Amino acid sequence: MDCIFCKIVAGELPAYKIYEDKRFLAFLDINPVNKGHVLVIAKEHYQSFAETPHDVLKDLIVKIQDVSKAMTEALGLKGFNVVNNNGAVAGQLVEHLHFHIIPRLAGDNLHPWPGKTFSDEEMKRTAENISKQL
Amino acid sequence: MDCIFCKIVAGELPAYKIYEDKRFLAFLDINPVNKGHVLVIAKEHYQSFAETPHDVLKDLIVKIQDVSKAMTEALGLKGFNVVNNNGAVAGQLVEHLHFHIIPRLAGDNLHPWPGKTFSDEEMKRTAENISKQL
Repeated sequence: MDCIFCKIVAGELPAYKIYEDKRFLAFLDINPVNKGHVLVIAKEHYQSFAETPHDVLKDLIVKIQDVSKAMTEALGLKGFNVVNNNGAVAGQLVEHLHFHIIPRLAGDNLHPWPGKTFSDEEMKRTAENISKQL
Repeated sequence: MDCIFCKIVAGELPAYKIYEDKRFLAFLDINPVNKGHVLVIAKEHYQSFAETPHDVLKDLIVKIQDVSKAMTEALGLKGFNVVNNNGAVAGQLVEHLHFHIIPRLAGDNLHPWPGKTFSDEEMKRTAENISKQL
């Protein structure tokens, strides 16, 4: 297994751990966007959000909430982003499902991505196309 | 109630709806980062991730997975971001919990936020401070 997160889980690679139980692990991102940038993972290896079983996702989102509350307390945060990147095109660097919790600070100069404009017709058609798959 | 998402839920404001059931709603972001940028919400009004009850979060994350799969099919996606912004400092514009699902395309020119460097000592201390709250 060449997955660096599986190696962290197995204790074969170091990490600044925040929280650990039998099924989940939280640790500092080694390339933090802001101080206290945390990753939360399920120990079991799933590459993508799509393939992760419901029971894992459900317990993971509660762990993410727990960790985000601890971060808010410890770091005195007024806000944070919860981010999950799926696919290399979306910036997923490690192919083991992980959620980022990114502390945000006033004046941290991190800008949201700009919006685009589509016609009413394009918006309607796009909504219908997605809706048909549900 | 001045919440625009509550007004969409109540049918008092229009939206390009993707999916709706008794408890959840998915619709197109009106200022999309890419075509097919979707928001998924619980109909009940919770401002922040921290205050949202576990049962709501658990069912919401499964809906987000369902909608992301439909988007992947409908739009032929190779990747997407799931993003939840908490607090004005983190870019939360509407104070009703919502998760963005942002379709990603090769060459879409959306760049990840840059990383910062902290000393080993700072990383250790930060991890310990957060860990103490858990």
